[in-house]
Amino acid sequence: MLNISQRGQHMPPSPIRKLVPFAEAAKKRGTQVYHLNIGQPDIETPDQILDAVRQTHFKVLEYSHSAGNESYRKKLVEYYAKTDINVTHEQIIVTTGGSEAILFGFMACMDAGDEVIVPEPFYANYNGFAVEAGVTVKPILSTIDTGFALPPIEDFEKVITPKTKAILICNPNNPTGYLYSREEMEVLKQLVLKHNLYLFADEAYREFCYQGKHFSAMHLTGVDDNVVMMDTISKRYSACGGRIGALVTKNTALLNAVMKFAQARLSPPSFAQILGEAAVDLPDNYFDTTKAEYKKRRDVIVKRLNNIPGVFCPNPGGAFYAMAKLPIDDADVFCQWLLEFFDHKGETVMLAPATGFYGTPGLGKQEVRLAYVLNTTAINAAMDCLETALNIYPGRTS
Amino acid sequence: MLNISQRGQHMPPSPIRKLVPFAEAAKKRGTQVYHLNIGQPDIETPDQILDAVRQTHFKVLEYSHSAGNESYRKKLVEYYAKTDINVTHEQIIVTTGGSEAILFGFMACMDAGDEVIVPEPFYANYNGFAVEAGVTVKPILSTIDTGFALPPIEDFEKVITPKTKAILICNPNNPTGYLYSREEMEVLKQLVLKHNLYLFADEAYREFCYQGKHFSAMHLTGVDDNVVMMDTISKRYSACGGRIGALVTKNTALLNAVMKFAQARLSPPSFAQILGEAAVDLPDNYFDTTKAEYKKRRDVIVKRLNNIPGVFCPNPGGAFYAMAKLPIDDADVFCQWLLEFFDHKGETVMLAPATGFYGTPGLGKQEVRLAYVLNTTAINAAMDCLETALNIYPGRTS
Repeated sequence: MLNISQRGQHMPPSPIRKLVPFAEAAKKRGTQVYHLNIGQPDIETPDQILDAVRQTHFKVLEYSHSAGNESYRKKLVEYYAKTDINVTHEQIIVTTGGSEAILFGFMACMDAGDEVIVPEPFYANYNGFAVEAGVTVKPILSTIDTGFALPPIEDFEKVITPKTKAILICNPNNPTGYLYSREEMEVLKQLVLKHNLYLFADEAYREFCYQGKHFSAMHLTGVDDNVVMMDTISKRYSACGGRIGALVTKNTALLNAVMKFAQARLSPPSFAQILGEAAVDLPDNYFDTTKAEYKKRRDVIVKRLNNIPGVFCPNPGGAFYAMAKLPIDDADVFCQWLLEFFDHKGETVMLAPATGFYGTPGLGKQEVRLAYVLNTTAINAAMDCLETALNIYPGRTS
Repeated sequence: MLNISQRGQHMPPSPIRKLVPFAEAAKKRGTQVYHLNIGQPDIETPDQILDAVRQTHFKVLEYSHSAGNESYRKKLVEYYAKTDINVTHEQIIVTTGGSEAILFGFMACMDAGDEVIVPEPFYANYNGFAVEAGVTVKPILSTIDTGFALPPIEDFEKVITPKTKAILICNPNNPTGYLYSREEMEVLKQLVLKHNLYLFADEAYREFCYQGKHFSAMHLTGVDDNVVMMDTISKRYSACGGRIGALVTKNTALLNAVMKFAQARLSPPSFAQILGEAAVDLPDNYFDTTKAEYKKRRDVIVKRLNNIPGVFCPNPGGAFYAMAKLPIDDADVFCQWLLEFFDHKGETVMLAPATGFYGTPGLGKQEVRLAYVLNTTAINAAMDCLETALNIYPGRTS
């Protein structure tokens, strides 16, 4: 008998995908399922950036530079400058999605046994990259009562050990939608300086902020060597399938180390680099339109949720996720029940149980994540389902 | 001072790219450089498969299935059937290049401290993936005198320990061009069965065999659980920039484990999956034309090399690489000297020193790898350069 590695065994399965068979069965029964469970936007990819790919006329689909095409990196410099992030193209390494930026950051900054502190709930795939790198995620709790604000600094201090190498935040946050304030970012800055830690900032949702401006980790001063930004075009331009992201840092030693990981895998995908390069030339109001649409959806979903008796949903400041606390016994059971045993006029809703986003077992059992990636008509219909479901769910707690 | 991880420090830089600055300087001086140093084919990517990408008309560039689009995997089943490899689409996980297939295989089959045996010289980036996975590459010597045939089985047995988890071969081989025979593959089969090891087979160059048919590890019987094939469309269709590969195995437990790694990074790139799917419908004579071109080049380069006094180049059976032994003191010094101090009628040649392909320090000092990815006119001009250079190189040994 050949063995799967310990790493392969410990690798967590996707917590979001485990309900997929139940959704498929529901659809086979003829039930319409509103998918609020995954962050796959329905926003159309801008036609002009798809056109950039359609109109390519090279002879050979060659490897690009391991750090990404220089022309693309220079274009990214322009993009970042628009958000007051001042970097050179040599401080950008183009990656295969934001996923690879996270993996490279983990690999180059931490060894097996090292620890990274992450406020929970957090993006579940951080666990997977941590297993790949052999590092331990140390979660510290952010709570729904505060809208998932940054946990008190003392909570960070409590879990810092000699093995702690980094703090990882996602801003605006997936899954909570929380937008960290400048003040919170400054607190993190003092913390990483005091303890000599990296500050990993996953800013995949940077462009989707609904109150106030995004304050990037790259806006912090005096922590150039500490800050590592993980980025992606997936959500920004609704281009998830392109698999183009970037690792951005001013730490030269780190850039040199990450380049070795980049060289081993030769290059990031070429087609989507062309798309990403064209995207920087989208009209300046591109994000206004998309953001207005997401804001409208957020307003609808948050209002609908808070109007359901026993439900609480803090107003998320960014991204396209909302976390809600429901009057239920167990979010996993409830979400499965929605697909397996419930329908409202032939429709039901698929949600992500929050348990998969917590690192501490047992947390999030009354919470669900809702991705508002559907139009407001669909969201309203989905909320009708949820409201009706909560009235008759056998495991209702209040 | 923030530290780079041990892993980041141990990560090997690309041995091929270290000479790039010298090539760039030579070009700045006006010297034409023939690039026989890298495996970037000059063969044009078939227009009809580029057209498949150009003619896409979806609205949203969505994540694909984490295992790759089902339609593409089903098409790959057709492709493999043409080479007598019988698999289902559920036994294929589409990866981001062959690189990711290797990394996933290493990660899912081996833990930190485990060992993988690889005949040397070998593809240098195996070292990088080994560092990422924390595993140790145990090289065993294949020699230029035998044309880099499979080392004797006793040499494998000698290095097998309880930590050995896998044997990795590249067939046909990069960097040697050696094509393993059916008999050699059967020997490996007995070995992996006896010692309960995985057999990793990197078959990136499967379609480029110039004498006899390719015998795939997937053709072996009775080792379904042991064999893991790493594949890519990069060389097959001259589509290196697409970054589409595949991990193929009949081992269900391993497929389940690899899927978790695939889910963590969400999906492989969408555009190049479309290209790869179209490629399976290329006319059956597509490979004939490409293969005839490579064979012609191989014949020219091998003949030219062996006609140079003191040079020995075994005839490679596949891929598009040749390894040559030169009458020189140090391949690294010589290859740099070619770029830094030499020209022949304003031209020079860039070669890959073989030292970077050996795991054992000190080996390969008289050997270079030549990638015949240029047309025969360029190859002849490059051989003129090499011949002239060897006449005047100060470190000539015989």
